[in-house]
Amino acid sequence: MPRGLAAEATALDDGDVLRAVRKEFALDDGTVYLDGNSLGALPRTVAGRLAEVVGDEWGRLRIRSWTESGWWEAPERVGDRVGRLVGAAPGQIVVGDSTSVNVFKAVVAAVRLAGPGRDEVLVDAATFPTDGYVAASAARMTGCRIREADARDIPGEAGPRTAVALVNHVDYRSGRLHDLAGTTAAVHAAGARVVWDLCHSAGALPVALDAHGVDLAVGCTYKYLNGGPGAPAYLYVRRDLQPRFDSPLPGWNSHTDPFAMDSAYAPADGAARGRVGTPEILSLLALDAALDVWDDVALTAVRTKSLALTDFFLRCVEAYAPEGRVESITPAAHAERGSQVSLRCADGAAGVMAELIRRGVVGDFRRPDVLRFGFTPLYTGFAEALRAARVLGEVLAG
Amino acid sequence: MPRGLAAEATALDDGDVLRAVRKEFALDDGTVYLDGNSLGALPRTVAGRLAEVVGDEWGRLRIRSWTESGWWEAPERVGDRVGRLVGAAPGQIVVGDSTSVNVFKAVVAAVRLAGPGRDEVLVDAATFPTDGYVAASAARMTGCRIREADARDIPGEAGPRTAVALVNHVDYRSGRLHDLAGTTAAVHAAGARVVWDLCHSAGALPVALDAHGVDLAVGCTYKYLNGGPGAPAYLYVRRDLQPRFDSPLPGWNSHTDPFAMDSAYAPADGAARGRVGTPEILSLLALDAALDVWDDVALTAVRTKSLALTDFFLRCVEAYAPEGRVESITPAAHAERGSQVSLRCADGAAGVMAELIRRGVVGDFRRPDVLRFGFTPLYTGFAEALRAARVLGEVLAG
Repeated sequence: MPRGLAAEATALDDGDVLRAVRKEFALDDGTVYLDGNSLGALPRTVAGRLAEVVGDEWGRLRIRSWTESGWWEAPERVGDRVGRLVGAAPGQIVVGDSTSVNVFKAVVAAVRLAGPGRDEVLVDAATFPTDGYVAASAARMTGCRIREADARDIPGEAGPRTAVALVNHVDYRSGRLHDLAGTTAAVHAAGARVVWDLCHSAGALPVALDAHGVDLAVGCTYKYLNGGPGAPAYLYVRRDLQPRFDSPLPGWNSHTDPFAMDSAYAPADGAARGRVGTPEILSLLALDAALDVWDDVALTAVRTKSLALTDFFLRCVEAYAPEGRVESITPAAHAERGSQVSLRCADGAAGVMAELIRRGVVGDFRRPDVLRFGFTPLYTGFAEALRAARVLGEVLAG
Repeated sequence: MPRGLAAEATALDDGDVLRAVRKEFALDDGTVYLDGNSLGALPRTVAGRLAEVVGDEWGRLRIRSWTESGWWEAPERVGDRVGRLVGAAPGQIVVGDSTSVNVFKAVVAAVRLAGPGRDEVLVDAATFPTDGYVAASAARMTGCRIREADARDIPGEAGPRTAVALVNHVDYRSGRLHDLAGTTAAVHAAGARVVWDLCHSAGALPVALDAHGVDLAVGCTYKYLNGGPGAPAYLYVRRDLQPRFDSPLPGWNSHTDPFAMDSAYAPADGAARGRVGTPEILSLLALDAALDVWDDVALTAVRTKSLALTDFFLRCVEAYAPEGRVESITPAAHAERGSQVSLRCADGAAGVMAELIRRGVVGDFRRPDVLRFGFTPLYTGFAEALRAARVLGEVLAG
């Protein structure tokens, strides 16, 4: 059976329509990098572009670059590039701040959009912690209460008191993909708003924000979008909601005429209303360069390969891992799977991951017992999936 | 008289103890750059360090750099470096987010520190707009009201209803330096807290946060600290207040054990409590490199040179500018002057600045009628101050 898997990996790699994209990343060290769901690999275009931004735009033009190098508009311009990857027409996404800060903006703004009597913020109970912490702060500061629910139950849990539901599109721990279309429709039917966290789906599978009428969304850009460590996050505000988007962080960058230096706040129209302070340009323009790798990539091809990779990896794990040592907590059904495989390893998971990394297979460990393997279709191949499972089997057997 | 000024400029440059520091900046294009109070010039160390961060830390080590390259602790480590420049002992400053976001954290936290019955946020009436906008949001979300007062009057205006006063150390428009020690003492005597905005003072003159018992402070790093476009801001929380610092943005980076991924929020001790989400590492480490230029620089020498530069520039303007065309709105008294000179130019100020820039003298224009000239003691010389005034005279005469 292992020999059959090797031949299959070769055939799958040979038929991979995205295979050429890998060359655009700095990945020649023999490592099997399966942590792109935490920090995406380096696109080769970034170093040169960043050197130009530093040397020429900052170093030579200095302050003039705010206008002459397009720095001022970069948050909206790069936002539109992200928009293409998450199904958002131009003018609805702005890049800047961290995901946490954007969750705060989105949840507070959603509460302010809610009708009277709606004082409940419904939160995905298994959420990445920051969303829960920040939603609790948003609730505290707007007179709401928090109620937790399993993300799968949110369609039924949203009710007449619900102002907003905050849901992860893909669960960071299990890799479970939640139903964006159905949940959005159900929350809307209950008269509430929905904020989607796209951190673990954007760039890993097609997201259709506009098509499903999502109200607000946030996400980071350093995972499947490969924007670099701590690359700025983004905020989506559906176009028709923008005139009523009432930000709790009305910094001067969101003013309709920032350089009027007016003491009275008057919010900008459009996505810029979600801006706050001066954007961290070096990180933002590194992301901008990193997005170049997406220019000729179809998200449908990414999704097809992602599912093939995770299917194949799961079969390889079954073939190589000693019986009973690991168990997948990632759903088998394609409709419920993101682009990672999470294996529960009851016995010594932290040590197993450390040894995997030592042997050149980089995933990550989430307490208390989860081994996470992220599959980035732009640069991960099938032979790598096979090797990762084989090394995992050796480590577990060892 | 002009000939005398030229000889004086030469003598002053010859006696300048900071003269050698200029070589550490990319400033060989013949421009007189007097906009370092908006965007500091590029320190030469940055390009190489950033190339290493991108190529080696992100490109080769990838996710491992969060621990192996010290990325995780960088906000506190760089915060301590900023601390040395603003009179803060280690462990009280964290770098990250924008100034606007930090104003929100600081004002909300200060309100939460206030005793019962204190529901007034006192704001410097001439503040840089973002502070006012964000303070208004903080007040709205904590049940407070905003009251504006001239920064010079805040000592007398703080009263029994005041929760916090938000004051600029140096006014961005006029360059007026406010009394940090006296204002802090007066606000404290009224039983309130004070948040200082150091954007236009840090790196331009000595700031003594600890010595004067300041409660909270914020500032940017892209002006006199030369951290690069949109470089991350910082937050100071005095050590004894940290255990009661209750952040409105409790992102996972501020958790006492972030990787426990606990659904319950438990804040970290120390400066890390002011963190929010994942920091923008490229911008943060560019700032880190930029701070190297300060290693052997004494803030007292910076202040001495700054006052000499602005004194000299004012005399040169008096010598070269046609009578009555410009008037300084920057205080003549040293104790009230930051490190910029602002000239009111009632007639065509925008066009005057555009022409100055065309002729290689870069300041900036603030509506409706202010020409701003920032003097950065690390890299601005006296002959440059003279040239700027001479060209200004020519433009005004032309």
